[in-house]
Amino acid sequence: MKKNDRTKAKTPKGFLFSAVEAAIKKPGRKDLALICSEKEAVMSGMFTTNTVKAAPVKLDMKRIKAGKGQAIIVNSGNANACSGKQGAKDAAEMTGLIAGGLKLDQGAVYVCSTGVIGTPMPMDRIRGKVPELLRGLGTGTIHDVAAAIMTTDTFSKVVTKKIKVGNKTGTITGICKGAGMICPHMATMLCFIVTDLKVAKTALDKALRGAVENSFNRITIDGDMSTNDTVLIMANGMAGNEVIRESSGAFKTFVSALSGITHELSRLIVMDGEGATKIVEIEVKNAWNKLDAEKAASAIANSLLVKTALYGNDANWGRIMAALGYSGTAIREDKTDISFGKVKLVKNGIATGKDKEATAVLKKKELRITVDLHIGKASSKVLTCDLTEAYVRINAEYRT
Amino acid sequence: MKKNDRTKAKTPKGFLFSAVEAAIKKPGRKDLALICSEKEAVMSGMFTTNTVKAAPVKLDMKRIKAGKGQAIIVNSGNANACSGKQGAKDAAEMTGLIAGGLKLDQGAVYVCSTGVIGTPMPMDRIRGKVPELLRGLGTGTIHDVAAAIMTTDTFSKVVTKKIKVGNKTGTITGICKGAGMICPHMATMLCFIVTDLKVAKTALDKALRGAVENSFNRITIDGDMSTNDTVLIMANGMAGNEVIRESSGAFKTFVSALSGITHELSRLIVMDGEGATKIVEIEVKNAWNKLDAEKAASAIANSLLVKTALYGNDANWGRIMAALGYSGTAIREDKTDISFGKVKLVKNGIATGKDKEATAVLKKKELRITVDLHIGKASSKVLTCDLTEAYVRINAEYRT
Repeated sequence: MKKNDRTKAKTPKGFLFSAVEAAIKKPGRKDLALICSEKEAVMSGMFTTNTVKAAPVKLDMKRIKAGKGQAIIVNSGNANACSGKQGAKDAAEMTGLIAGGLKLDQGAVYVCSTGVIGTPMPMDRIRGKVPELLRGLGTGTIHDVAAAIMTTDTFSKVVTKKIKVGNKTGTITGICKGAGMICPHMATMLCFIVTDLKVAKTALDKALRGAVENSFNRITIDGDMSTNDTVLIMANGMAGNEVIRESSGAFKTFVSALSGITHELSRLIVMDGEGATKIVEIEVKNAWNKLDAEKAASAIANSLLVKTALYGNDANWGRIMAALGYSGTAIREDKTDISFGKVKLVKNGIATGKDKEATAVLKKKELRITVDLHIGKASSKVLTCDLTEAYVRINAEYRT
Repeated sequence: MKKNDRTKAKTPKGFLFSAVEAAIKKPGRKDLALICSEKEAVMSGMFTTNTVKAAPVKLDMKRIKAGKGQAIIVNSGNANACSGKQGAKDAAEMTGLIAGGLKLDQGAVYVCSTGVIGTPMPMDRIRGKVPELLRGLGTGTIHDVAAAIMTTDTFSKVVTKKIKVGNKTGTITGICKGAGMICPHMATMLCFIVTDLKVAKTALDKALRGAVENSFNRITIDGDMSTNDTVLIMANGMAGNEVIRESSGAFKTFVSALSGITHELSRLIVMDGEGATKIVEIEVKNAWNKLDAEKAASAIANSLLVKTALYGNDANWGRIMAALGYSGTAIREDKTDISFGKVKLVKNGIATGKDKEATAVLKKKELRITVDLHIGKASSKVLTCDLTEAYVRINAEYRT
């Protein structure tokens, strides 16, 4: 395999990238991409909890049990979901084509798809483009892959962090696609994280679980949950550091960097929510327990009436109270405070009259709404966005 | 009290109606109304399950325990919700003003409010208009009341049925307001049903519960649930029929007529869903059990991606499968059939290719989508509507 000179400085050592146009949904953009490590990597993955899982998800869930791999082929334009036995064959064939070309064991290749559900994969066009995809390895960048996996995303999402482990510097780069169908457990999205750090399998699993729980599982665009959500991380060890285990001093640093990446990626996903004009953090404080806090934050973050009010710059806190009321969370209306930014709009369940000040906060591109329940000590945060006419337009016309 | 001659023929005997303009939110329309029975009526009610309940809901829930009453005062423009102790005082005062004017026991008067949450009731304007409201009794019609309770509704909703009980003819008339914030358990709405039939309290309770469960609790506009949902029924017995008990032969006829009225009213609510262009019945068949069927139908009916696809005339059944997958329902993807009208678009989880035919069905104003899970015998239906740019516009600008 060729060295990836162009992006060596920015992305982790030993990873090669390629992206080509296979016209999977329609022509005009790159939609088929490949990520490849020069050496076998330790791998970990997390997948949608939707019981309807796309064919590539089912395949990857089996392969990830080995805890290792070397390549990921990914396409946009077609989700290869609800595609029956043929879909399973197609997913397997896609990995086989790459394994053949790179002389890898087929089990070392993963496949991800995103796009329309229920349409057969255009395998002829994919087969025809695999040679070009393989030839491109080493000339493409991770940014090309990030662009190729976009569906209704309006910008590609790449975040890189470097950390020191002993006297070695390791790099972690994450890319993702998001947009619609985003809801906790977990965001509808594909996310690929590559690092040249050497990380033990159990440490990688634990770090990824924690990072996803506090990022992708805490965002919502429209309350829907996809059939294809996948997060895969590859750690190829080429930074030459001493292996990071859960007991290592460097584990905390690694977890922190990884969580920083997934948090920033999830923020970018919400910012790019279909048609969204603003990003809003819903924080529920002092709930009876963690589950209550999460239910309350999710109910508010998913309420169409709240989300349209955010869009209209209307500090309509009554809709927040209504969402709290049907969330199943233990609340005392006469103890509940609601703040928009630092403006306390509701104190003990009653309006303070600071509508003007709250409206000013609402006009910002990023803001926080805090609900203080004053009945316990648990808290939870969810990132959401407003609901606009553009969301409706995008999703009404998605397949046309 | 004066006789209501104008509407005697169409509405139940012995009920009087009145509506006036109190400019509760803004001037320009009637927004304060009164329903009054000449004789004390047997009453039953059902209320929102939202734990945040508006002041009038809390008051009515207490009074309905007596199982009787004679008048209902209702306003639009202000929900008197999240209004604290003052809100409770205001609700009680509204009933007191009517009780005083009609020389009734205060406990015989009920109050309902709908509109903006968290804003104090403009009691000065209400107090000033009560004399006119009382004077109007006997000149107004139930249609005036139906118009006065509208918020974002675009048309008023009135349904009447007549039934024979022995040799007497009884009349049942229901009115309601709906529009946004509509979700099972129960529709965000106010509904008032008046009948001159003589019905025993336990029979009335049972009939109402059944009717609501199969109508208002099975519709959804936006998945939100309001603080104010109320259904009240008054049966004043002035038809002179032998009292209807659960054991009566006429009970079944009464239940059927009442259910017909609530079903038709709930259909009108969905038809008038904010910004909606079509009404869609989601039917889930052959689920493992009733709860599963309900969860599946609700998940599909509430999915923004499904609802925007309905709007875009896109037979995007993948979104239906995705909603099934996260609904928590037991499904077998390879056993699932999906039909749009009579067009089977998915057979055993795989597309049949009949997109054109399904799209033709989608272009109708009313249609049914049937999901056959083929794993049990339980079924459930939910009425929903599409999600349009107009919904977003209406709800972004609601308070402006």
